[in-house]
Amino acid sequence: MDLLLDLDGYSIIGTVAFAVSGYLLGVRKHLDLLGVVIVTLLTAIGGGIIRDMLVGRMPMVFLDNTNLVVIALTVLLAWLVRLHKRENEVLTTLFIIADSIGLVAFSLAGAKLGVEFHLNAFGVILLGFVTAVGGGIVRDMMVNDVPFILHKDFYGTVSIVVAALLFVLSRFGWDHLLAVQLVFVAGVALRLLAHWGELSLPKLATQRKGRDN
Amino acid sequence: MDLLLDLDGYSIIGTVAFAVSGYLLGVRKHLDLLGVVIVTLLTAIGGGIIRDMLVGRMPMVFLDNTNLVVIALTVLLAWLVRLHKRENEVLTTLFIIADSIGLVAFSLAGAKLGVEFHLNAFGVILLGFVTAVGGGIVRDMMVNDVPFILHKDFYGTVSIVVAALLFVLSRFGWDHLLAVQLVFVAGVALRLLAHWGELSLPKLATQRKGRDN
Amino acid sequence: MDLLLDLDGYSIIGTVAFAVSGYLLGVRKHLDLLGVVIVTLLTAIGGGIIRDMLVGRMPMVFLDNTNLVVIALTVLLAWLVRLHKRENEVLTTLFIIADSIGLVAFSLAGAKLGVEFHLNAFGVILLGFVTAVGGGIVRDMMVNDVPFILHKDFYGTVSIVVAALLFVLSRFGWDHLLAVQLVFVAGVALRLLAHWGELSLPKLATQRKGRDN
Repeated sequence: MDLLLDLDGYSIIGTVAFAVSGYLLGVRKHLDLLGVVIVTLLTAIGGGIIRDMLVGRMPMVFLDNTNLVVIALTVLLAWLVRLHKRENEVLTTLFIIADSIGLVAFSLAGAKLGVEFHLNAFGVILLGFVTAVGGGIVRDMMVNDVPFILHKDFYGTVSIVVAALLFVLSRFGWDHLLAVQLVFVAGVALRLLAHWGELSLPKLATQRKGRDN
Repeated sequence: MDLLLDLDGYSIIGTVAFAVSGYLLGVRKHLDLLGVVIVTLLTAIGGGIIRDMLVGRMPMVFLDNTNLVVIALTVLLAWLVRLHKRENEVLTTLFIIADSIGLVAFSLAGAKLGVEFHLNAFGVILLGFVTAVGGGIVRDMMVNDVPFILHKDFYGTVSIVVAALLFVLSRFGWDHLLAVQLVFVAGVALRLLAHWGELSLPKLATQRKGRDN
Repeated sequence: MDLLLDLDGYSIIGTVAFAVSGYLLGVRKHLDLLGVVIVTLLTAIGGGIIRDMLVGRMPMVFLDNTNLVVIALTVLLAWLVRLHKRENEVLTTLFIIADSIGLVAFSLAGAKLGVEFHLNAFGVILLGFVTAVGGGIVRDMMVNDVPFILHKDFYGTVSIVVAALLFVLSRFGWDHLLAVQLVFVAGVALRLLAHWGELSLPKLATQRKGRDN
């Protein structure tokens, strides 16, 4: 299908970014080689596997090697250039853009699957969300961090917004390629705006510890 | 089916209680809005989703909006009345009763699914258990608490007891509505008794730190 | 099938070892009776359940009581002999051998399922890995330890190596009983060698905290 083929292109950029992010975390946490591999794979493809478990189909990555090759090459390259020892503003900027593309592409791919299964809005949004951030959540749970998604403002929210938009489009029969690409661009823009503009969600418990009110 | 329709009524009370419990935890942990939503949904419907993944069917909540509407209204109301800022004995008592009803209703609903799939006792009990407490376990793992179920005496046990009773009843062909309702009442009574009577399970390692024996 | 029947024998030894390991951890963590049961079951059969969820089939343990009886008898015996209060070199050695047998038998059983489903190398290896260590990972996540697999060198690696070997054998049509048994023996030998010879995987971040380089 055209749409999916197209989003696949973005998904590969996202896979690269997510693999890099998992690799860096694993190295920083002083894991051994296997640990780094596990954390990298969880970040890059864990969400897709959980999504496939939710809808009861064999995980795509068990059948198709594309993403695995992309991840292997990414990690090899990251290791060869000693990425974990660099600190570089251009690199960071590139990474954030690639990560945003991945976030939105994965969210749209997951949501699209939900639309194909005729799920309700919750199902469509959850599949988008899980595809994009599920792997990162499990990774954080494994290394005993509170999942980034519970703290990192406007990351998961972007996933939810673009999945919800796809659901609405599909309900009106407007989910053709151009519309989805518009959602894609808007989603990436929202994420980058949130990152550099420091948007954040309100907290319900606004009082700080140590204050009475 | 009559039984399920009937238990559904209790399940809705349970969904309300579980949603409130997730909401309060999220606020107390100072999560942002999305974090509170995630924690609330996990508590209220996470167990049912895991159960559906175990038996390989599309999660019910992806197809039916009832529980989602109940949760949304509950959280909205909880927020409107600033529930997280109240401390109130009547409220606490009501909450514990509703939570007990949810625990038992969810356990019976999960166990019933296992009976319908002709599972063994373990499968029936596990499905009941996972439906009732699986969401809370994942929630606690996410926010880095040791799951309440590993410490909170006679909570999970109640789930296991009622699911086991349903299994036994079904084996003898006695799982008609009246019998299941008796199990339901007994289960809620056991939970409340355990809560207010401070029943607890024995520990295998009885010696305390700092003692020799 | 001959192969599976045969590996089942080893799997039972492994189930015993994994049940003992879960039991000891639960007692050491001062969990109550239910907590010990949960941790024991997760360690012994959690991996198999996750594997079955991945391939979308009803968990075997919901249909067949064999493993459950083995686990129940194991824990009962462990408790009767107060295993958690003994410290004994012979016992430890026996345990490590049984655990290694379990690790390799579970890995082969999981990988074999992947071969039967015609999965790619990643799918075959992941199913072997998850069957062998998935339950232990979830257990460690529940009790808030960083999963042993991320630190315990050459444990998960053994699982991956034997599953990969089975995949290669199957591709060449060499996965008959004798070849698989050779892989089995080699896998157990590798694990014991790693344990007593203190093999370990390299870390990518070799510098320690507190040093500059």
